[in-house]
Amino acid sequence: MHTKTSIIAGPFITEDCVWLNGQIMSIERNERLKKCFDLIRNLIKIQKGENSQEVKWKIRVCSENNFPTAAGLASSAAGYACLVYTLANAFGLVNGDLPSIARQGSGSACRSIYGGFVQWTAGVDDQGYDSTAVQIAADTHWPEMRIIILVVNDSKKKTSSTVGMKQAVKTSELLKYRIQKCVPERTKEIIQAITDKNFEKFAEITMRDSNQFHAICLDTYPPCVYLNQVSHEIISFVHDYNEATGQIKVSYTFYAGPNAFLFIQQIDLSLFMSELVNVFPTMQPNSSYLRGIVSTLPNNVKPYGFKSKDKDLLKYIMVTKLGNGPKCVDDHLLNSDGTLKSKIESTN
Amino acid sequence: MHTKTSIIAGPFITEDCVWLNGQIMSIERNERLKKCFDLIRNLIKIQKGENSQEVKWKIRVCSENNFPTAAGLASSAAGYACLVYTLANAFGLVNGDLPSIARQGSGSACRSIYGGFVQWTAGVDDQGYDSTAVQIAADTHWPEMRIIILVVNDSKKKTSSTVGMKQAVKTSELLKYRIQKCVPERTKEIIQAITDKNFEKFAEITMRDSNQFHAICLDTYPPCVYLNQVSHEIISFVHDYNEATGQIKVSYTFYAGPNAFLFIQQIDLSLFMSELVNVFPTMQPNSSYLRGIVSTLPNNVKPYGFKSKDKDLLKYIMVTKLGNGPKCVDDHLLNSDGTLKSKIESTN
Repeated sequence: MHTKTSIIAGPFITEDCVWLNGQIMSIERNERLKKCFDLIRNLIKIQKGENSQEVKWKIRVCSENNFPTAAGLASSAAGYACLVYTLANAFGLVNGDLPSIARQGSGSACRSIYGGFVQWTAGVDDQGYDSTAVQIAADTHWPEMRIIILVVNDSKKKTSSTVGMKQAVKTSELLKYRIQKCVPERTKEIIQAITDKNFEKFAEITMRDSNQFHAICLDTYPPCVYLNQVSHEIISFVHDYNEATGQIKVSYTFYAGPNAFLFIQQIDLSLFMSELVNVFPTMQPNSSYLRGIVSTLPNNVKPYGFKSKDKDLLKYIMVTKLGNGPKCVDDHLLNSDGTLKSKIESTN
Repeated sequence: MHTKTSIIAGPFITEDCVWLNGQIMSIERNERLKKCFDLIRNLIKIQKGENSQEVKWKIRVCSENNFPTAAGLASSAAGYACLVYTLANAFGLVNGDLPSIARQGSGSACRSIYGGFVQWTAGVDDQGYDSTAVQIAADTHWPEMRIIILVVNDSKKKTSSTVGMKQAVKTSELLKYRIQKCVPERTKEIIQAITDKNFEKFAEITMRDSNQFHAICLDTYPPCVYLNQVSHEIISFVHDYNEATGQIKVSYTFYAGPNAFLFIQQIDLSLFMSELVNVFPTMQPNSSYLRGIVSTLPNNVKPYGFKSKDKDLLKYIMVTKLGNGPKCVDDHLLNSDGTLKSKIESTN
């Protein structure tokens, strides 16, 4: 799963402009986008001098995700991280605190500036100005780790994670305890589990913390509910599966939406996937239902014989692994005159 | 909503025996029932002397609820409270701590020994031996209070509240904070709100505390989920309704199941009910869908015009009010020779 972003800047670009997945977005009306542009221009001033021509250049951005936006799949985290990284690279900026700039676009974008396992640190400043991200371990540290994303069919109206979290800070009493006591302890524990490649420990903390996060959402007033019935069926299935195997083979985590993110190691993937498609069957051909790095599944293997649920509770299943952070690639989305390479422009 | 219990005891009864809603139950295999019988016999010994004949009498019990059991409607609380009250009355026991005895059957049964608003106090003993119930206010203090029970159509397997709460105590970190900080503060606040008949305050605490209770269930490992999609739709509807009226007119609380208990004052009942049956429509005739103390609803009045949801998400809606605690009534369920009055006995 990735975001691809191209930018072009220069005296021949007449205004700042961003295409996101083919849709043009107003920068003036988008506070977060504006903040990122401002902070990058600030960095240009600092590093290239107040009178540098580049400060005045307008910027054209084209960004595309190969996965749905606003579906609780952290598309804005990937998007802002990619944008800030691309801008910094294009302007040859060095030593800027890119995570902090990306964070102004989307909180968790600071994490996506790095690959592998990344910690988003709170910092000590009341306003969070020193909140940033640090890498715990590169993706190469645990190459066996796989992530299975279960995209859930859902039509419920969403509460954005920013709105939800602001309301939680205002109204949830339990959040105080979570911040003060649970998060610091668990952060220490999960860093240790990652360092040791202790999957069972890693998996248990992941599940407990996902549940606690959603408990806080429920303790928010009015309550903020991201999980739906299918999410809960996935949770039950993961616990049942682990109980059947007698080991924690797989774990789940949920962000601000009903989609599940499962962690599993490569060695256990194939057997689990067989049971998964048995429990969550589909009317679709497997080629559109199973995406990403899926090897051929053994036919009709239902190792633990769980009961199948209704068909098509899931939109699709995507298997992926840890990313290794943003990098420069060769295929641009923009022509050198600033026009879009794809035909999307004319249809919008 | 009530439980009716008859007992008969004497030298002519050959063994302890309990019929619950027509089903015979083994006392030997039911620890809780056994404990209640033992504690009552203890009380007989203390009050009537070690050698009293009544200590040796076997007891026959017949108990019936006019509402479903094991559906999260607190049928065991009502049942054990009624049983203990009936036994104490039949044996002429005075000054016994009936809430504490009832609590051995079902924790919340201690509350049901009294009418009106009742607090279940924790006590200071580690083992909870001094945990009991005290009445905050009689039902006559707030006669305008109505309770609407929305019985939800649901087929999910249930976690009993006892199992769920034991697991929560063992595994939920947030529960520690809830016990130490949130519960004492809220208890004080809601007692004040009841004393003042401050509905909005009462309602808000009720909703916040219901949400926090279910947050704790979710923070339990593995998570314990009592609310389903319909429960969440009810929660959303209540918040939307209050927002539409500009006041907190109605509140919700959920126990160990998906059914909603709404609080509302008599003056607001009719208008709210009109909207409720519009939002949660049914294929049933109103006579079986709307139960309890429902006055005729104004035809087709949808004061705020909320969108109707799918039909028959609810099994039925029951409107009731605060009970006034157990009392003796005249119609026995048992004949004087210990046989059941109804024909149920022969079919079991």
